[in-house]
Amino acid sequence: MKSLDGAATVVDHGGSLGRARALFPHAPQPFVDLSTGINPHSYPFFDLPATALSRLPEAARVRELAEVAASVYGAPSAANVVATPGTQILLPRVASLASPGKALVLGPTYAEHHRAAAIAGHAVTEVDVFEVLAGADLAIIVNPNNPDGRIIERKKLLDLAGKLRAKGGLLVVDEAFMDVGPHAESLAGDVEQGGIVVLRSFGKFFGLAGLRLGFALADALTVEQLEAQFGPWAVAGPALEYGIRALADSGWRAEMRCRLAEDAARLDALFGRFGVSVAGGTTLFRYIGLADAAGLFSALGERGILLRHFSGRPHVLRAGLPGPDEEWQRLESALADWAQQRDDNTKEVKQ
Amino acid sequence: MKSLDGAATVVDHGGSLGRARALFPHAPQPFVDLSTGINPHSYPFFDLPATALSRLPEAARVRELAEVAASVYGAPSAANVVATPGTQILLPRVASLASPGKALVLGPTYAEHHRAAAIAGHAVTEVDVFEVLAGADLAIIVNPNNPDGRIIERKKLLDLAGKLRAKGGLLVVDEAFMDVGPHAESLAGDVEQGGIVVLRSFGKFFGLAGLRLGFALADALTVEQLEAQFGPWAVAGPALEYGIRALADSGWRAEMRCRLAEDAARLDALFGRFGVSVAGGTTLFRYIGLADAAGLFSALGERGILLRHFSGRPHVLRAGLPGPDEEWQRLESALADWAQQRDDNTKEVKQ
Repeated sequence: MKSLDGAATVVDHGGSLGRARALFPHAPQPFVDLSTGINPHSYPFFDLPATALSRLPEAARVRELAEVAASVYGAPSAANVVATPGTQILLPRVASLASPGKALVLGPTYAEHHRAAAIAGHAVTEVDVFEVLAGADLAIIVNPNNPDGRIIERKKLLDLAGKLRAKGGLLVVDEAFMDVGPHAESLAGDVEQGGIVVLRSFGKFFGLAGLRLGFALADALTVEQLEAQFGPWAVAGPALEYGIRALADSGWRAEMRCRLAEDAARLDALFGRFGVSVAGGTTLFRYIGLADAAGLFSALGERGILLRHFSGRPHVLRAGLPGPDEEWQRLESALADWAQQRDDNTKEVKQ
Repeated sequence: MKSLDGAATVVDHGGSLGRARALFPHAPQPFVDLSTGINPHSYPFFDLPATALSRLPEAARVRELAEVAASVYGAPSAANVVATPGTQILLPRVASLASPGKALVLGPTYAEHHRAAAIAGHAVTEVDVFEVLAGADLAIIVNPNNPDGRIIERKKLLDLAGKLRAKGGLLVVDEAFMDVGPHAESLAGDVEQGGIVVLRSFGKFFGLAGLRLGFALADALTVEQLEAQFGPWAVAGPALEYGIRALADSGWRAEMRCRLAEDAARLDALFGRFGVSVAGGTTLFRYIGLADAAGLFSALGERGILLRHFSGRPHVLRAGLPGPDEEWQRLESALADWAQQRDDNTKEVKQ
C-alpha cells in the first residue's frame, strides 16, 4: 500500500490471485475467482495478424474502432468516442476536465473514482443522496452501480447534467456494466450536449480484461482534449483487433446477454438454497447482503472460492459468475459446507 | 489534423501505411516501410496464456516486469521503474511533473515532446544549443537523438540535471534508442538523485511496437506519482508477458545488437553506392542529408519504399532498416532507378 501526496490511498481490488493466495494460503487451487464482474465466457480467441504486435497501430484502424463503438454504444458519431488502454487510465484524465473543485461521488461505489478525482486535485466526498450531486463541480455516478446494481434513470441524469453544465460543471457516468443493460438509461446518445462524459468498458462484458480497452464518450471537443492527452497509438494492436471484431459481433453480444441473465438467475437460486439472498447487482455480478458476510467470505475463500468483500462494509459481498461446470460445483459444495457448519453452530447454541 | 486548445498541432509520424497509400496511390504494394526506427526483426512470437487476455493483469507480474526492466536498463531498483502502455502516453504525464513554466527541447528531435510539454501547460521552445537548456524549468533531450543520432555525454547530462534540480527543475532524457547504445551515456543508473526522468521504449528494439510498452525511470517518489496517474492494470497482459520474456533474454538482445549493427553498415554501403551519404543515426535508423532529399523521398515512395521525411526540413531523411531480403532488393532497385534518372537528367542539362 503506497500513500499518495494529498490523494487517496491505493485501494484493494478484486481479481488478484496473488492477494487471494496471501489471504487463503491453504485453499485448494486453482481458485474459482468470483471476485470481479468480468464475464467468465470470453469472446472467442482468434489469431492476430503478426502486424498487430509488430507495427504501430494504424490511425485508420483506430477510426474503425471508434465507429463501431459509437454504433454499439449509441453515441452520436465516432467523433464522440475516444478509445484508450482501459477505462481505468481515463479516470484521472476525465476528472481533470473539470477545474479542481468539489467532486461528489454517488456511493458506495467503485473506489477508483474517488482516488482519481483526488489526484486530479478535487476535494472529493462520497454522498449517498442523488440530489446532493447538483452541488458538485464534478459529479460521478456508476450506472448501473457497482456493487449493488442501483440504476439511476436517464431523465434524472440529464436533469443533473443540465444543472451542472449551467455552472460549468461536469457529470461523469461510468457505464462499465451497461452492456448488460438497461440501455434505455444510458447517456451515450446525449454526450454531444456537453458537460457529460460516459465511460464504457470493453473487457468486462467481453471477458477480455487483460487486453485493456475502454472508451470515453463525450462531445467532440472534449474527445479532442482527451485524445491529445493520450496521443497516437494509445490502444495496442491486440486490443484494436479484438475490439473491432467483438463489438461488431451483434449475434454474440445478444446471445451473451441472454446467457449471463440465465447464469445470474442460476447463481441467485444457488445462493438462495443456502439461505443467502441476493439484494441486487447486474447479470455480471450479484450483490449479497448478509449479517455474517465476513464469515461467508472466509469460509468460501478457504475452499478456494473468491468473492469480493469491501473494507469497512462487513455485511455485504459481491459475487461474479462461475464459468465452467466445475466452478459451479465447487461453489455449491463450498456453500453446502458453510451452511452445514452454520447450522451445526446454531444447534450447539440452542443445546 | 486537429488543432488543440493552446497547444501544438497533431504532428505527422512515420509508420502509417494509410498515409503512405494517400501519398503514393500508384506505388507497388506491400510497402517497404522504412519510415520508422522499429526493428524489422521482431522478438519471436509465442503463444500467450489465455489468462493474459481474459484476466486483469496481476500486480505480481507487473513487479516482475519492473524488476527485469530495472536490471536490463540499469536502474537502481524496481522501485525506480514505472511500466506503461507505450512511452507516448507517458509524455504529458512526465511533462506535468514540472509546474507549468519554461520547457526547452533540444532539437531538432521527436516532435511529440514539444506537443506533450505544451498540453502540460509549458511554454515550449526548441533550442539547438545544449548549454541553453540550463535556463529551463523542464529540459527535454532525446539521447541518442532521433533522427540524427546525436549523443550527449552522461557527464554533461548530470551536470545539467544538477543545475535544474537546484532550482526545482526537471531533466527528461528520452532513451528510446539507447538499447543499441552507447550504454555508458545512459542516465538510468542516476535517477535516484531526483530531478531526472529517463524514458525507455520496449517496442522499437524488440520490434513489437503494436504491443504498447514503455517505461519511465525516476526516483521512487516520482515513480509513485506516475503510477498513481496510470492506476492499476495500465499494462496489458500481452505486453506484460512479452516484456518479461524478451527483456530477460540477454542472448537475443546481444545477438540483435550485432545484427542491427551489421544491417546498418550494409544500409550505409547501399546508399553510398548511389551517392547518398549517411550523416548519422543509430543502428535502428540512418540519417541522410541530401540536397534533393525531397526528390529521393518521392522517387522511392512511388516505388513503394517509404522513408521518413520531415516537414520544413527538405534536405534530410531518415531510413529504418529493411527486413527480409526482398525488401533489400526492392530498395536497391528503387535506388538504382532513382540514380539512373538523376544521372540522365544531369546529362541532359550538360548536353
